[in-house]
Amino acid sequence: MGMVGGTLDAFIGGVHRRAAIMDGEIELVCGAFSSNPEKSKETGKALYLPENRVYADYEEMILKEKELSEGDRMDFVCIVTPNFVHYGPTKLALQNGFHVVCDKPITLNTEEAEEIAALVESTGLLFCLTHTYTGYPMVKEARAMIANGAIGKVRKVIVEYPQGWLSSFVEGQGTNKQAEWRTDPARSGASGGLGDIGTHAENLAEYVTGLHITQLCADLTIFVEGRLLDDDAHVLLRFNNGAKGILQNSQIANGEENDLNIRVYGETGGLEWNQMEPNTLIHKTNQGTRLVRTGVGNLSQAAQVHTRVPAGHPEGYFEAFANLYRNFALHVRARMEGTTVDPVYDFPTEKDGLRGMKFIDAVIASNKSDLKWTDF
Amino acid sequence: MGMVGGTLDAFIGGVHRRAAIMDGEIELVCGAFSSNPEKSKETGKALYLPENRVYADYEEMILKEKELSEGDRMDFVCIVTPNFVHYGPTKLALQNGFHVVCDKPITLNTEEAEEIAALVESTGLLFCLTHTYTGYPMVKEARAMIANGAIGKVRKVIVEYPQGWLSSFVEGQGTNKQAEWRTDPARSGASGGLGDIGTHAENLAEYVTGLHITQLCADLTIFVEGRLLDDDAHVLLRFNNGAKGILQNSQIANGEENDLNIRVYGETGGLEWNQMEPNTLIHKTNQGTRLVRTGVGNLSQAAQVHTRVPAGHPEGYFEAFANLYRNFALHVRARMEGTTVDPVYDFPTEKDGLRGMKFIDAVIASNKSDLKWTDF
Amino acid sequence: MGMVGGTLDAFIGGVHRRAAIMDGEIELVCGAFSSNPEKSKETGKALYLPENRVYADYEEMILKEKELSEGDRMDFVCIVTPNFVHYGPTKLALQNGFHVVCDKPITLNTEEAEEIAALVESTGLLFCLTHTYTGYPMVKEARAMIANGAIGKVRKVIVEYPQGWLSSFVEGQGTNKQAEWRTDPARSGASGGLGDIGTHAENLAEYVTGLHITQLCADLTIFVEGRLLDDDAHVLLRFNNGAKGILQNSQIANGEENDLNIRVYGETGGLEWNQMEPNTLIHKTNQGTRLVRTGVGNLSQAAQVHTRVPAGHPEGYFEAFANLYRNFALHVRARMEGTTVDPVYDFPTEKDGLRGMKFIDAVIASNKSDLKWTDF
Amino acid sequence: MGMVGGTLDAFIGGVHRRAAIMDGEIELVCGAFSSNPEKSKETGKALYLPENRVYADYEEMILKEKELSEGDRMDFVCIVTPNFVHYGPTKLALQNGFHVVCDKPITLNTEEAEEIAALVESTGLLFCLTHTYTGYPMVKEARAMIANGAIGKVRKVIVEYPQGWLSSFVEGQGTNKQAEWRTDPARSGASGGLGDIGTHAENLAEYVTGLHITQLCADLTIFVEGRLLDDDAHVLLRFNNGAKGILQNSQIANGEENDLNIRVYGETGGLEWNQMEPNTLIHKTNQGTRLVRTGVGNLSQAAQVHTRVPAGHPEGYFEAFANLYRNFALHVRARMEGTTVDPVYDFPTEKDGLRGMKFIDAVIASNKSDLKWTDF
Repeated sequence: MGMVGGTLDAFIGGVHRRAAIMDGEIELVCGAFSSNPEKSKETGKALYLPENRVYADYEEMILKEKELSEGDRMDFVCIVTPNFVHYGPTKLALQNGFHVVCDKPITLNTEEAEEIAALVESTGLLFCLTHTYTGYPMVKEARAMIANGAIGKVRKVIVEYPQGWLSSFVEGQGTNKQAEWRTDPARSGASGGLGDIGTHAENLAEYVTGLHITQLCADLTIFVEGRLLDDDAHVLLRFNNGAKGILQNSQIANGEENDLNIRVYGETGGLEWNQMEPNTLIHKTNQGTRLVRTGVGNLSQAAQVHTRVPAGHPEGYFEAFANLYRNFALHVRARMEGTTVDPVYDFPTEKDGLRGMKFIDAVIASNKSDLKWTDF
Repeated sequence: MGMVGGTLDAFIGGVHRRAAIMDGEIELVCGAFSSNPEKSKETGKALYLPENRVYADYEEMILKEKELSEGDRMDFVCIVTPNFVHYGPTKLALQNGFHVVCDKPITLNTEEAEEIAALVESTGLLFCLTHTYTGYPMVKEARAMIANGAIGKVRKVIVEYPQGWLSSFVEGQGTNKQAEWRTDPARSGASGGLGDIGTHAENLAEYVTGLHITQLCADLTIFVEGRLLDDDAHVLLRFNNGAKGILQNSQIANGEENDLNIRVYGETGGLEWNQMEPNTLIHKTNQGTRLVRTGVGNLSQAAQVHTRVPAGHPEGYFEAFANLYRNFALHVRARMEGTTVDPVYDFPTEKDGLRGMKFIDAVIASNKSDLKWTDF
Repeated sequence: MGMVGGTLDAFIGGVHRRAAIMDGEIELVCGAFSSNPEKSKETGKALYLPENRVYADYEEMILKEKELSEGDRMDFVCIVTPNFVHYGPTKLALQNGFHVVCDKPITLNTEEAEEIAALVESTGLLFCLTHTYTGYPMVKEARAMIANGAIGKVRKVIVEYPQGWLSSFVEGQGTNKQAEWRTDPARSGASGGLGDIGTHAENLAEYVTGLHITQLCADLTIFVEGRLLDDDAHVLLRFNNGAKGILQNSQIANGEENDLNIRVYGETGGLEWNQMEPNTLIHKTNQGTRLVRTGVGNLSQAAQVHTRVPAGHPEGYFEAFANLYRNFALHVRARMEGTTVDPVYDFPTEKDGLRGMKFIDAVIASNKSDLKWTDF
Repeated sequence: MGMVGGTLDAFIGGVHRRAAIMDGEIELVCGAFSSNPEKSKETGKALYLPENRVYADYEEMILKEKELSEGDRMDFVCIVTPNFVHYGPTKLALQNGFHVVCDKPITLNTEEAEEIAALVESTGLLFCLTHTYTGYPMVKEARAMIANGAIGKVRKVIVEYPQGWLSSFVEGQGTNKQAEWRTDPARSGASGGLGDIGTHAENLAEYVTGLHITQLCADLTIFVEGRLLDDDAHVLLRFNNGAKGILQNSQIANGEENDLNIRVYGETGGLEWNQMEPNTLIHKTNQGTRLVRTGVGNLSQAAQVHTRVPAGHPEGYFEAFANLYRNFALHVRARMEGTTVDPVYDFPTEKDGLRGMKFIDAVIASNKSDLKWTDF
C-alpha cells in the first residue's frame, strides 16, 4: 500500500501501519507522508522505504505509482491525513484506478462524500472507511446474535462515546496538534466531537442492530469557552423498526478515556459491550447474565474469523483495526484473482462514510430546530 | 409508628418495617394493614401487635390513636399503600397532628401533592417521602464532593434507571399484583415507569448535583402491547446552571435488575455511582481514577454518619432505607425535645414529592408536544 | 434475647442487635452490656430497656432472668464480648437452660470448646456461632450447586481473607481498642488473624464444598514489629475427597478492606464468590461464564429463603447476619412448639466452633513443624 | 529474522511473527518452519518468502544464512518449536554468531539451560526468552512503583496462573496437538503446567517485586486420569527480603481462560494486576484505591515507552509480546551501531530462562520431599 499522511509523530498513521501489516498480507511500499517534503523523507527513511518511493505529495505518488508495473506498484492508497485532506487524495486515487482505505470521516462535507460514493460506484473500486470499532470480535458476535434473534426484536438502544481530553481549552495552549485541528472548522468540518467520535457511535449502533436511524432530536453544546465546534452531543433516536434510542458523545466528560459503549435491549434479552474491555460481551436476560468472551464456547463464525489468539489473551485496538485491513486485503486479492469473499469478512465502506456525513448534517439541523424531530 | 398498608405479602411494607426498626429508634405500635380486615388482623398478629392496635382502616387508626395518651399513641404514620391511597391517609394524619412517612409518589397527581405540601406547611408537621436511594452513604459523599467543588462546575449529567421485569405483558397473567397496579392508571396515576422509577432518577440527579432541571425534551413509549402506561422514557435535560443531561428509565430493558446509576461530569472531574454496587463511588479525572469506598479514608461527615459498619462489610438497600427513617426519627424526637438536628441528617420531604409530580407532568407534556423544549 | 457485652461503642454488639431484630422475630429484652456497671446502664437506657432488665454482669442476668416466667424471661443469650469472655457466659447460660448465640470464636481454646460442645449435647439446647458469611444467599446457592453436582467432583479450592487494617502497629497507639484486644494473647487466644478471620475462611470452604480438610501445611507470620500474634497466614490444604486447596488470610494486606473470597473448581465447572460484592456468584465453565445473582432466575430453595428483596436491591452484611438469627429463631420457636424446621434454615453450631478451634491448633502445629503435612 | 518452527497452524508462531513485525523494526527473511519440508515450504510461501530462504531444517538455515552477506542474512534466529527443540537450534545459532529469540522454556532441562547460558556469556550474543507477560506497560509500571517505594518494603506476594483447558483428558482425543505435546514428558520436560505457565508466574513475581524466591514448599498434582505431567501446582514461597508468598497455577481450573494475576502487598500499600484486563493496575492503600491506567496521568518512563496508543484504546497480548521484540531489536541494532540502550528497554534473557528451569527443579524436589522447605 501507499500512505498519504502519517508522519512519525502522528498518532493515527502508526496505528494504520501496524494494523495493515499485522497479518502479513499488506506491505507499505511507498508514501507521501507530509506536505513538508523534509518530514516526508524522514518518515520514509525511518520506515525503511527506498527514497524513490517517498513522494513530495499525494498527486505525485498516485501518478508515479500508476506508471509502475502491476507487480511493483502499490495496490491501494491509505489516507491518514486530517479530515480536510481526505477528499482530494481519495478522488485522485479512484480516478487513477487505485482502491482506497481512508481514515474517518470520508470527507469534509456531504457533497464531497456523495461525489466520492458516486466515484466508487462508477469505478467499481474498493473503498474502506476505518470505523475501527466494528472490527472487534465481540461486536461481530453482537451483530450475529441480534441477526439470529438472540434477543428478539430490538426495542431500545443506548450508545455512548464519552472522552474527557478536551475538558479545558487545550487547543489554545499551542502544544496539542490533535486538539488544534480537531477543533478547527476549516480542517475538521462543520462539527467537532460529533464528527470525530459521534459518528463512530452512530455507525456502531446501526452495525450491531442492523437497523437504521430514521429520526433524531439533538442538543449539541460547546462547553469550553473559546472553542469553535461542539464538544458534547445528546441525541434522542428513533429507528426504522420502531425501536428508540439515545446517543451521546462527549469530549468534556472529564476522566473518561475512550469509553465507546453500547447497550441493546430486545424483546427477550439485552446485550452490552464496552470498547475499553472489548473481549467481553454481556448477554442479559431476565433469567440471568452470561459473559460472552472472545475465544470461549460456541461463537458465531463472524467472531471466530476475527480472533487471532486463544481465550484469555486480550486482543485490543490494533487487532480490531487490523481486522478491517485484513478483510479489505482479502477483497483486493479476490478482485485480482477473480474470486469472491465470504460476506463474514466485511469492512465499512463509502456507504457508511456517506451515512456518517448525513448524520452530522441531521444532528446539526436538529440542534438548530425548535421542533422535536428531524428526519434522518 | 403506625402503618397504613403493608400486609405480609406486600414487598414494600416489609422493607419499611425492617428499615424503621433497624437502629432501634422506632417501634411499630399499630397498623391498618389492609382494606380487608381479616388480612389486616392476620398481619398484625404475625407482627406481634396487640389486637386492639390493629385497625379496620386508616381512618379508625388515626382517630383512635389520637385519643391515646402522648406516651402511648403512635408518633407518626407510615403509608405503604399503592399510589392512589397515599393522599387520603396522609391528609388525615396531618390534620390530626401526626407526622407522616409516605412511600413514593406523594400522591396520584399534582393537585393532591400541592394540597399536601400546603398542609405540611400550615401544620408545621414533618413529612418524609422515601426516595430511598439518596440514603446511601456514597450518594451522600457524591453530593458533598460536588458541593465542595471536587469536580468543579457541573456540565453534564447522565442518570439512568433501567429494569427489565415488565418486558412482557406480565400484568395480563393474573399472577403479579405488583405488575397489575403499577400499570393501572387508576391506581398508579398518569404515568407508569416514569412515575415509579423515573422520579427516583430525577430526584437523585437533583440531590447529587444540587442543581434544578429547568427544561426537558421527552420521548415516552409503551413497548408492550396491551399496556396502558409508559414502560420506557428517554429525556433530554437542561439544568439551571447551564449543565445538560440525559435521563432514561425503562421497565423493558430486558435483563436489567434495578440498575439506577448516575454520572456527573464537571470542569475538573467526574463521578459515577451505581445502585447495584452502592458502596463504591468512582471519582475520575483526566489524571486518573479513584474508588471512593464506604468506610475508607477521609470521607465527608455526610457519608460517615450514614454508615454503620467498617469498610468491606457491604451495606445495601435496607441500610439506605433505614438512613431515611433514622434521620426522620431524629427530627421527630428533636421536635418533642425542642432541639435541632444537624442538617447532615436529611431526608426527602413533601417538596421532593411535589417536584416529582411536576416532573411527571412536564415529561408527559413534552412527550405530547412537537416542540423540542418544555419548561420544568 | 438477653445480651452479654455490646456497649454502644462496640462494633459487633450493634451488628448483632440489628441482625437479631431485622425480621421482627427477636426482641432485646435484657442485657449485661459491660463489666463497667455505668456503661452497661447507659447502654441499656439508650436501647430503651427497663432499668431492672439491665444487669451488673452476666451471672446476674442469667440467674435473675431464670426466675422470671417463661413468657417474660429472655429466650436465649447472645454473647458479643471479646473472645476470652465467651466460655463463661456460654457455660452458665447452657447450665441454666438458655439457648445461646455466640460471636466467633466459640472459646479461647480447644479444651473449653470441647467442654461447651459436650454441654450443648448433654443439655439438648441450641447453640449458634455467628460465622456470618455463610448466611449470604449466594453462599447458600454455591453450596446447593456443588451438592447438586453443578461443577462435578471438587478438585481445587482457593479461599482467601485479606484485610489491611493492621498493616502498622495500630495496637500500640492507644486509640484502637479493637486492635488492642485482637492482638493480645490473653484476650484473643493463641492466634491473631488466623483465629479472627482465618477460621471464617476455613468454615466457608468446608460449608460451600461439603468437604473436610484433612491435612494442612502452614506458614504463619508476624509482619509488624512488636505484635504478639500472627497477622498473616499461608496454608496449603488437602481435602477428604482428594481435592487440594490454599487458604490465606492477612491483616497486613495493605489496602484490602474485608475481601473474603472463595473459588472452587470441579471436574466440570468452577464457582467464585466475593464477600464484598456478595450478590453475585460467578459460575464458570470452559464453555462460558454465567453470573448467578440474588433474586434472578431459577435459584435453589436455599438461596431463595435467605433473600428479602427483589433482584438488584443489594443485600449485605446485616442481612447475611440476620439470616443466622432468623434461622436460629425458627429453631428456638420450633422447640417451644414441638415442631421441626426444614434443614434449609441452617446456622453454624458449636460443631463449627470446635472445628475452628482445632483448625487453629493444627495450623499452629504445622507452622512449628519441619514436616510438610500436619493432620487436621 | 529467521524463524525455526511456526507453521501456519501453530499458535505461537503466528504470535511471534505479528509481535516481531509490529513496530516495523523487524522483518522475517527466512525460515525452517517444520521438520516436514512440504509444510515448511507451504508456510514460507504463505508468508511471501522467496523459496531459497525457506530451509529444510534449522541446521541448513543457520549455516546457509551465515554464508550470506551481513546486509542480506538474517540478524537473529527466532525459535518457536516445542520445548524439546529449543536447545539444538539455540546452541547452533549462538555458535554461528546469531542472536536468539526463543520461546519459553529455554530448554528441556537445567543442564541444557546452563550450557546455553554459558554460551551466551562466552559469545557475547543477545538472547531473549519470551516471557511475554512482563512486556505489558502496567507490569512495567508496577515494577517501577515498587522500585520507587510506592508501597514500601514488600511483605506478601500472591501470584496465580489458572487455566481450565486441560480439565479433561484432552490429550487422549487425538485432536489437540497443543495438549499432546504439552503433556508429553519427552517433548515438554519434567513438568507440565508448572513449566508451561507456572514459570511465567515465578518470573512475573520476581520481575515485579525485584526480589528473589529463596525457599519454597510445593504440592503438585495430576488431577486428570491418564495424564503424565502435573496439571496443578500449589506453592508456598519465601523471598530474600523476608517477604512471603503463594504461587499457584493450574490447567484444570475449569472455566478459567488465561488468568495470570499478581498481588503484592508492602508496608504502605498494595498492587494488583490481572493479565486479562492488562491496562489497569490497581493501587490500594488503607486510605483508598486508585486505578492506574495505561496512558493516563503521570506514569513511569518504563510504562510510557511500552505504550503505543492513547488512553482507552486497549492494548493486549500482541502488543506486550511486541514490546519484547522491539526492545530486543533496539539492542541488536545498538550492537551493530556500537551504541547503548537505556535500561528501560529491557527484555527477559537466558538468566530468566535458567532461573525458570531451576524453579521447576526446586518445585519438583519439594513436591517429593517430606520436609516443608526446599531451597531455591
